[in-house]
Formats: sequence, C-alpha cells, structure tokens
Amino acid sequence: MTIQEQNAIPIPQVEARVPVPAQNLRVPGPTTVPEQIQAAQAAPMINHRGPEFSAIAKRVTARLQYFYQTESLVMTYPASGTGGQECAIVNLFSPGDHVVSITIGSFGDRLAKIAVAYGLQVTRIEFPWGQAADPAAVEARLSELAPYRGVLITHNETSTGVTNDIRTLATLVRNLSPDALIVVDAVSSLSCIPLDMDSWDLDVVFTGSQKGWMSPPGIMMIAASPRAWEANKTARLPRFYFDWEMTRKMLAAKWQHPSTPAVSIFYALDVALDMMLEEGREAIFERHAQAGSYVRERAKGMGLQLLADHPNASNTVTAIKTPDGIDTKALLKQLREQDHVVFAGGQGPLEGKIFRVGHLGYFTLSELEQAMDALEKRLREAGFQG
Amino acid sequence: MTIQEQNAIPIPQVEARVPVPAQNLRVPGPTTVPEQIQAAQAAPMINHRGPEFSAIAKRVTARLQYFYQTESLVMTYPASGTGGQECAIVNLFSPGDHVVSITIGSFGDRLAKIAVAYGLQVTRIEFPWGQAADPAAVEARLSELAPYRGVLITHNETSTGVTNDIRTLATLVRNLSPDALIVVDAVSSLSCIPLDMDSWDLDVVFTGSQKGWMSPPGIMMIAASPRAWEANKTARLPRFYFDWEMTRKMLAAKWQHPSTPAVSIFYALDVALDMMLEEGREAIFERHAQAGSYVRERAKGMGLQLLADHPNASNTVTAIKTPDGIDTKALLKQLREQDHVVFAGGQGPLEGKIFRVGHLGYFTLSELEQAMDALEKRLREAGFQG
Repeated sequence: MTIQEQNAIPIPQVEARVPVPAQNLRVPGPTTVPEQIQAAQAAPMINHRGPEFSAIAKRVTARLQYFYQTESLVMTYPASGTGGQECAIVNLFSPGDHVVSITIGSFGDRLAKIAVAYGLQVTRIEFPWGQAADPAAVEARLSELAPYRGVLITHNETSTGVTNDIRTLATLVRNLSPDALIVVDAVSSLSCIPLDMDSWDLDVVFTGSQKGWMSPPGIMMIAASPRAWEANKTARLPRFYFDWEMTRKMLAAKWQHPSTPAVSIFYALDVALDMMLEEGREAIFERHAQAGSYVRERAKGMGLQLLADHPNASNTVTAIKTPDGIDTKALLKQLREQDHVVFAGGQGPLEGKIFRVGHLGYFTLSELEQAMDALEKRLREAGFQG
Repeated sequence: MTIQEQNAIPIPQVEARVPVPAQNLRVPGPTTVPEQIQAAQAAPMINHRGPEFSAIAKRVTARLQYFYQTESLVMTYPASGTGGQECAIVNLFSPGDHVVSITIGSFGDRLAKIAVAYGLQVTRIEFPWGQAADPAAVEARLSELAPYRGVLITHNETSTGVTNDIRTLATLVRNLSPDALIVVDAVSSLSCIPLDMDSWDLDVVFTGSQKGWMSPPGIMMIAASPRAWEANKTARLPRFYFDWEMTRKMLAAKWQHPSTPAVSIFYALDVALDMMLEEGREAIFERHAQAGSYVRERAKGMGLQLLADHPNASNTVTAIKTPDGIDTKALLKQLREQDHVVFAGGQGPLEGKIFRVGHLGYFTLSELEQAMDALEKRLREAGFQG
C-alpha cells in the first residue's frame, strides 16, 4: 500500500491567516488577559503528577478560597462555565428531585435546562430579561412550591447585565427551607462583585478562569459547603468526569487531579491571583463598581437606553438597547473592524435588540472610555441623535 | 461593617516559589511543548464569538480531520482525556444498554467504570496488564456475548505501554456485529501511531491536546462516524456539557462552540498542526516507531525488563520493570532532582513495580538518549548490574 492510498483524506488547504490587530476586548468573557499572565502560559510544560504542579495547585487553591471567602475546598476542572453548571447539578441531586430555578436570563435558563436534562423535576421562577429576581416575589412563590431539594440562582446574569441580590435571596431560601441546597452561578461575578460564600451560607458556587480572573478560558472552579458535601454522599445522578469526591481525594492526598489539569492555564491563574492580591479584593470590587457606573452613565449620556436601568444593573457587564434604525450586527462589525473595539451581541430573544459591554477582570477606565468614545462616534455617524 | 469583618477568610500565606529547572519531560503526557507552541499561547485574548476565533476553529478542525483520516466532524471540548471517555459514552448509549469493554490496563478500566457509572450493562474482556488484547480470544468471547450495542477499546494503553491492534479488532467486531458501535480511546496514540478512522470503520475516536499533539492540556478532540451520529439521535443517557448535537450545530452555523472554548490552547494547537503537517504524518509515525525501538533496546541493553516485550509494545510509552532492590519512587525522585529527567510511575497494581518513559509528541532522539543515559547512570550507582 502506498502512502497515497493510506491517506484517503488529503491534507486540507487552509485559508491564509489574517493577523488580529490589537483590540479593546469589551465582551463579558473571555476577558482581556494582561501581558504578564499571557506570558506565564509560555513556561515549559511540567508533569501534572509531580511536586512542581502540586505546589501550584496548593497555592492557587488557597487563594481561590480567599476570593470565595470560604473554608471549603475550591476544586477545579478543565471546563467552561457551563461545565460548572453541570458539575453542580450532577453532584448534588438524584433523579426526580424537585429543584427551583430562579432565572432572569439565558444562563439561568441553561442551568434549568441541565437540571431537566438530568431528570430533575424543575420549577422555574422567571423574571423578565433585564430585571433582577424580586425577593418578595421569590419568597411568596417558594412558599407555595415547598418541598424542594435545591434552589438554582444566577448571581450575575451575563446575558442581560443584571446582578441578583444573592445575599438576600439566599437568606430567604434558608429561612424557608433550612436544608435546601443553594446553587449559585457566579461565573461572571466572583472576584468582581462581593460574594462571601461561607457567611452567606451558599452551598455551591462556581466560576470560570476567563471572567473576573483575567486568565484564559479552560479552568472552571467550584466549591461546595459541608451541607453540599453531605448531599453529595447520597446524590445518585450519574457522573464521573465532574465527580467531586474523586477530585477531593486526589487534592487531599497529593494536590493532584483525577485526570490531566489544564497546566498552562494554571500558570496563568497563579500569576493572576498574585496580581489580584496585590490590587486587593475590595479595590477590585471598587474598580468594577466604578466601571459599571461609568459605562451606564456614558451610555445614558449619549442618549442610549439600558436594558437594566435600576439598582441591580451589573458592574461586570452592561446591556445597551440598540437604538431604532441601527443594525446591531453592522454596528458591532464596524466597531470591531474600524475601531478594534469588540462588544458582544444579544443572546436568544435579545439578539439584534441589544449589545453588551464587558467590564470585568482586567481593564483600565481609559480603555472603557476609548470603547464608549468609539461607540458614540459610530452612532453619531449613523445619524443617532439620542 | 469594616473590611476586616467582611473578610472572615484571611489572605493566605503561600510558600516561596521554587523555580523549575529545564527538564527532560519524559512522561506520557502532558508532553513537552516546543517553544513556538508555548509562545503561541501568549497571543492576546479574542472573542470566542467573533470571526477571528471562527477562522482558527475551522482551520484546526480541517487539519484534525486529516490526522484522524476522517470525513466526520472532529469536535473539541475543554476537557481532559477522561472527558473524552465520558463524552463517548453519554452520546451513544441508553440506560441498560449492553456494552463490551476490552481492557488491558488502567485507562481501559476507567472507560468501563464510566459506562457502569452511567448505568450501562458492561461485560469486560480483560487481559493481563502488559499484554495486548488477543484477537482470537476477543472473537471467541464476543461470539458468546452477543448481542451488545457497543465495544469499548483502548488503542494505546498509557498505563502499560501496549498498543492494541485496533484495525484487526475493529474488523472482527464489525464482522460479528455489523451494527455495534466501536469506541476507540486514542488519547495517547492518535497522530503518533497509524489510525485511519474512516477506512477502519471506527465509530468514535477521541484524544487530547497534551499527548501526540505537542500542545498543553485543555482540549479534548472527538469524532463520530455516521453510524455513531445515528445512534446519538436515540441515545437517552443524560448529557449537556458533552452533548454532540449542540456542538455540531454551533460549528456548522458559525464555527463556534456552545460554551467558551479554551482559546489559548487553540492558539497552541493551531501552531502545533502547522508543525505536524510540515513534518508529515508518516514521518511522525516513523519518528515514534524509532523512539519506541530505541527506548526498548536501550532498556533491555542495560539489563532491564520491559512490561511489554512483544510486538504490541507501544511506540509512545514504554513501561519498564523496576529491578529488584531498587525503590521506584526514590529512583524517579533522584532522576528528577539531579538529572532533571522526569519519568512517570506505575498506576494501580503496577505502582512501585514499574516506571514509564514517554516518547510521544515533541522530542528528539538525543533527548531520549539523555534520559536513558541518566537512567543507566543512576541504576549503576545503585548497584544494578542487569
């Protein structure tokens, strides 16, 4: 047999590569990775079963616990934020368990969909996209819905730019149902917006390296309270890759993982945590609060309407309504190609109706200013008066 | 409330960092990442929903198809090789389905365990660790076991350094059970050892970026035959994160993924595929064949015994029996600390009894020579005469 016959699938012709210009990446994740974190990835590969990796895993874990404000182990998996959603569900519940999903947008819906896919009985408490969950309405509805094994809540809804008052919501769930498992999707909030896992009595909190952590995508982080670990012992949903107990055992024994971790993303996250501690947890919160305020004010100042113009507007992502007569896709294309400013479009029912400005993780206020200046310029050119 | 009160979990004190010296990383994954691939990761982050990422995804996919020798879509997920195992199982089968697991070591056992965890009826055809699956024995046993919905096979068993004759095994399965789904774990073989997915009529093949692909860990690749896609339509195991159909739809529509891909590992893999095409598929196979032969001959030449001293010995990883009187852990520690040569230990029942030499992905024969020289020196110092 000749080599030609062996290779029935020919070598593909690929298109010429187009260099990517320096961009002002203003999407709500993956977020801009600062140069020293980018460079950290380029360190030589190491054995994930050796002492060099264990030292990194131990150091990263301790500092993740600080940002989570938890004494519980923060585990990591090579996965996206959606992996965090699935990891939470499969480790806590058994087929047929009743859970309540409080959803205010696309990612809340996704968490509920995963619960349904795994055979849970899911009741949704939905709020219109752009609104936060109203605690009084949640409380009233939960009282009717008891008993339930868990409550699924999004901290910061990336699709709409709305931050739920998790502390208040968690407190009322705990008062109504002391044993309910409170699952918090903190993918686009943790480290940017205050969240104290232990003192707020949250049971599962997960996030992703590509959001507030200034690192490339590839690592999902998740922590479970003692109550959640107890639930894990009897949770019968099938799982293996995302199983907590296997991970806990390996971390406890050797600071290793059951399967190969994303080593170079660990290098990045390790440096990111250095930078975050140097800046300080409260200073990071303050920078995000300023960013949220700045972007909202600038948008309103140029005559735009916010999807969420209320106290629960997010400090990590702002959703702006596309003005009448403007084509969202064309606007974002123009900004990307001509100004190298990259915004995100809307998802699901909001596609074409909004665009989103990410301001989480690594950014300076001058980058936000440049992005908003470019936006204003392009809108004015298109005839938008506001 | 003061800041001190908010931060009930104090900032952790972490140990001083110990610089990692340049190493000769001879574990069977994660493998050495060449400098230009390391550096590729440090490119600026981009929007995973923009045209820049789509161009990379399209280009990487076409070239993965070439290395798979398949016309089927090669999908990727942020995950380890174990994620590939789970992804295969959950997309193909329904609860109670009967599958046959042909296992020759730790990773074959893991695939079977995942099938059990998901409620499949699993029959194992096991061979002693260090041996390959004997086609005649498999054929005889399979004839007794019919009907079965799928057969799970490891191409290259990383824990023992043995390569199964997948082409022969797949042919006999196909002849016995034309509709059976043939699932091949090619994590530590694909791109290093010949595997032609389409012409060998394999149904699912998965691998990981950190093995033959010379890239950091973080991306799992998986392809499914038309028969496997047909099975996917009726497969009822619960799934979401690893669901094929969602991934297929997003790739087909926009070269995007359902959730955030590991962008910087894509940068690495993109450059790795350039290098691999430049070297050539057959040349890569030949380099691995030479490496396997060299390491085996050197080991035997210094008086060591191989776990697999037969024609199915792997060309990507060699398992060497620790000589009597030598402590495996101490030997590997000495080699790591004093010679900067990193070998892997044994797994499960082989822990302490063997060590493993990785020779897959990026390496030169002189690196293998240096590693084997160091091994010989330390064994002689320890009094081993062979």
